Amino acid sequence: MTISGNLLIGGKGTRGSNGEFSAVEASTGKPLEGSFGGATKADVEAATKLAWQAFDIYRETSLEDRAAFLEAIAQEIEALGDELVVRAMAETGLPRGRLEGERGRTAGQLRLFAKEVLDGRFQELRFDPANPERKPAPKPDLRLRNIAVGPVAVFGASNFPLAFSVAGGDTASALAAGCPVVVKAHSAHPGTSELVGQAVQRAVEKCGLPAGVFAMLFDTGFEVGQALVADPRIRAVGFTGSRRGGTALMKIASERKQPIPVYAEMSSINPVILFPGALKNRAEQIATGFVNSLVLGAGQFCTNPGLLIAVEGEDLDTFIAKAGQLLPDMPAQTMLTGSISKAYCEGVARLEKHPEVTLVAKGKTGGEFDGVASLFQASASAFQAHHELQDEVFGAAGLVVKCRDVAELESVLDGLEGQLTIALHVDESDMEDAARLRLKLEMLAGRLLVDGFGTGVEVSPAMVHGGPYPATSDGRTTSVGTLAIYRFLRPVSYQDFPTAMLPQPLRQA
Amino acid sequence: MTISGNLLIGGKGTRGSNGEFSAVEASTGKPLEGSFGGATKADVEAATKLAWQAFDIYRETSLEDRAAFLEAIAQEIEALGDELVVRAMAETGLPRGRLEGERGRTAGQLRLFAKEVLDGRFQELRFDPANPERKPAPKPDLRLRNIAVGPVAVFGASNFPLAFSVAGGDTASALAAGCPVVVKAHSAHPGTSELVGQAVQRAVEKCGLPAGVFAMLFDTGFEVGQALVADPRIRAVGFTGSRRGGTALMKIASERKQPIPVYAEMSSINPVILFPGALKNRAEQIATGFVNSLVLGAGQFCTNPGLLIAVEGEDLDTFIAKAGQLLPDMPAQTMLTGSISKAYCEGVARLEKHPEVTLVAKGKTGGEFDGVASLFQASASAFQAHHELQDEVFGAAGLVVKCRDVAELESVLDGLEGQLTIALHVDESDMEDAARLRLKLEMLAGRLLVDGFGTGVEVSPAMVHGGPYPATSDGRTTSVGTLAIYRFLRPVSYQDFPTAMLPQPLRQA
Repeated sequence: MTISGNLLIGGKGTRGSNGEFSAVEASTGKPLEGSFGGATKADVEAATKLAWQAFDIYRETSLEDRAAFLEAIAQEIEALGDELVVRAMAETGLPRGRLEGERGRTAGQLRLFAKEVLDGRFQELRFDPANPERKPAPKPDLRLRNIAVGPVAVFGASNFPLAFSVAGGDTASALAAGCPVVVKAHSAHPGTSELVGQAVQRAVEKCGLPAGVFAMLFDTGFEVGQALVADPRIRAVGFTGSRRGGTALMKIASERKQPIPVYAEMSSINPVILFPGALKNRAEQIATGFVNSLVLGAGQFCTNPGLLIAVEGEDLDTFIAKAGQLLPDMPAQTMLTGSISKAYCEGVARLEKHPEVTLVAKGKTGGEFDGVASLFQASASAFQAHHELQDEVFGAAGLVVKCRDVAELESVLDGLEGQLTIALHVDESDMEDAARLRLKLEMLAGRLLVDGFGTGVEVSPAMVHGGPYPATSDGRTTSVGTLAIYRFLRPVSYQDFPTAMLPQPLRQA
Repeated sequence: MTISGNLLIGGKGTRGSNGEFSAVEASTGKPLEGSFGGATKADVEAATKLAWQAFDIYRETSLEDRAAFLEAIAQEIEALGDELVVRAMAETGLPRGRLEGERGRTAGQLRLFAKEVLDGRFQELRFDPANPERKPAPKPDLRLRNIAVGPVAVFGASNFPLAFSVAGGDTASALAAGCPVVVKAHSAHPGTSELVGQAVQRAVEKCGLPAGVFAMLFDTGFEVGQALVADPRIRAVGFTGSRRGGTALMKIASERKQPIPVYAEMSSINPVILFPGALKNRAEQIATGFVNSLVLGAGQFCTNPGLLIAVEGEDLDTFIAKAGQLLPDMPAQTMLTGSISKAYCEGVARLEKHPEVTLVAKGKTGGEFDGVASLFQASASAFQAHHELQDEVFGAAGLVVKCRDVAELESVLDGLEGQLTIALHVDESDMEDAARLRLKLEMLAGRLLVDGFGTGVEVSPAMVHGGPYPATSDGRTTSVGTLAIYRFLRPVSYQDFPTAMLPQPLRQA
């Protein structure tokens, strides 16, 4: 495969003429091979027009054909072989093992949605037969099914170059629902994006689908993304990124002539609550698990544990001491991009300078583009008085909030924003308190977990990777797991339709 | 029962001190017995605080208890007897038969949701068991369920004083989902609202539920409604009314610190497409059905057929002639309020004065507060050139759009806004064209129907009373039928929870 730097529109590569940019080697900041052309507004329109034209054919494909298409994408991605992994390593600074795992996750996710399509339950077929004898008025024949909402714009995420990017979860679930997809590739890994985009294009062609089912665009700024969300042919948006980016897209979408749903996964500090019994019995063990979760992938996970909440005392001191002892041995790690690394450094510096915050420990220092793990502590009253301490510092930064007692701990929870995950560490003696708190915690997060950390998001029918605003723009959905298909569907009811006019799945009696 | 004019908060009646207003007899414009006090911001806060406090208890009620509560509301409404019907007749001008039917529909709807609750499928329980042996990482135990989103604000509609009002579909579905409800009563039928609100309060008490589960507020302007939607304890909104009102609430909701979903059913002209074969074989029969649907309830249905689209020619002339012959015999009918009647008159006057629009016929004239049915015609090119001809004229006004050929008819469809319903009148010879158009029509409406009219919205598991913007604020849902319960739910995932900490429904293996 060659990286051409072209936009992928209509089954072809097209040179974007709206500026050029290079891919950058994450570990050195130096340009990598290949130059990428940004899309013009005309390119955006060409892509969405083709998507709209392809929509009626694609959404009426049989479940078998659609599942085969998802499977074909998985195969084409696997067929890219090591070139994909090597390119992604260079562009993101992520290690080989992580990227090989992520490739497996991406292919597995496509196959899971293929199964979900074949299963067919997402169609929500409902039959309510007529009763011409009913008084005072005869009862009509009513049938219902979910249909695809229309072409979907997907924004690739910086931190998962495969699993949340060109052929990641948003794309897989939108295609599964019957929606063509136009991807805005993330400029942090354009070569990786192009390789995967070409793989999807090949799958489209092999499956004999209209070329408009998939397109991928590069953007040198924000113009392409904004134009995509504003385009009347785009009917839903999938996004994973910053709160600033997500809320900007929400605004554009709500100001359209026809507003559309934006599914933006934005920011979360994923609170970890350490209950007294658990702390008493295994403070050091939990501290070890915590530090490992904190530094995983240089802390660049949406579910990174950025906040610990516990009641102060000897056991919490033991926890902090252990974490403080482990952290200095943690190597610095290359961050995804220069600007992410810079933002992380600035976030850590803000915490260091904060009058109410104390440094517990830092990891090893590294190169210019590396992130240094950092752990801080503050009192609950300081945390509550300074709302900015809830701001996500994207990377391996954590803050321990020390509460005077359980009542203060609960009041800290009351002041929390919406989160993707909340983790509880509990022993037998904590269960009553923890069970009572469940009601509060359910209102704060999409996933609650016990004796673990949020990193490691299982692709499962029972997964919710979502949560109340501002963790996401829409807490009623998930971006990981099979439930995500429902984002891109809407119900339609058919009344007294002659069989010949009914959509195929509703023709059965 | 006595009509006190009080707000219903916390199981009691409280006098609102933010202005007073009277109920008005729809047919005369004269004040009816009783004066109603508008709520202050403090009243709004009292209601939402109690709702929030009641939320944790109410959402954890067993399915049996929650179903019994819905059944109790139905019984209490029925127990109001004729007083309710008489009061609603006076306040709305709607005839006895219609209101008795609507009462049956309202009770039936509550019972349907009681069944839906008992069925339990809305909980979406999902179990994905652990696999500690999995490599490279053990698989956690994951369970998922839907939980209630939180307290819901419901806005009573003017045109259905029972079925879309205090204990109407939005209230029934929100209560079924486990959400406390705060109703903003419509000032067009405050006495009816209070009677029904008292019935709900009695049901709350009889079932031993916290009083905060239900509240009802009066508003002398827009202040109460706006404060409700802005209140941080309110987590979703149900609204049926004008586009102006609905979009105003959408704006408030999207600008909150934590944005919330607004389910607003707003405006629709419910296009009726007359295909050539159907017109040829039964133009007069369809015209009769159309006129009956147009004038039903003085045209004050969300699904009133306000637009007919057909290819010009002899058969369409026959249709128009027949409708024009029937209409003059249609009696004028009292409209719901003086302002609705005034807005209808102005809308009809705009059409009469429009240079591209011709009057076909009018119904009988009547009193000051009556609506006179009116049918107009225009060419397809005029319709396409004048977007204002798509504006809903709430009442019994219809417009026939005459197309040169099927291609022009399709281009008219391409320019249509989102609708609640689209009706197709077809014969055998039309089926191929109609089946082809289905794909276009699915993107335009929530319900498609053949050889009928949209009026008469069946309360059914297969009903979609919704549709793309601007018919509603959110085309992914319905406000009628059991599917409506999903508006007020969101999924939560529980990972590795000890049984004792799991919510009851997820404890099974």
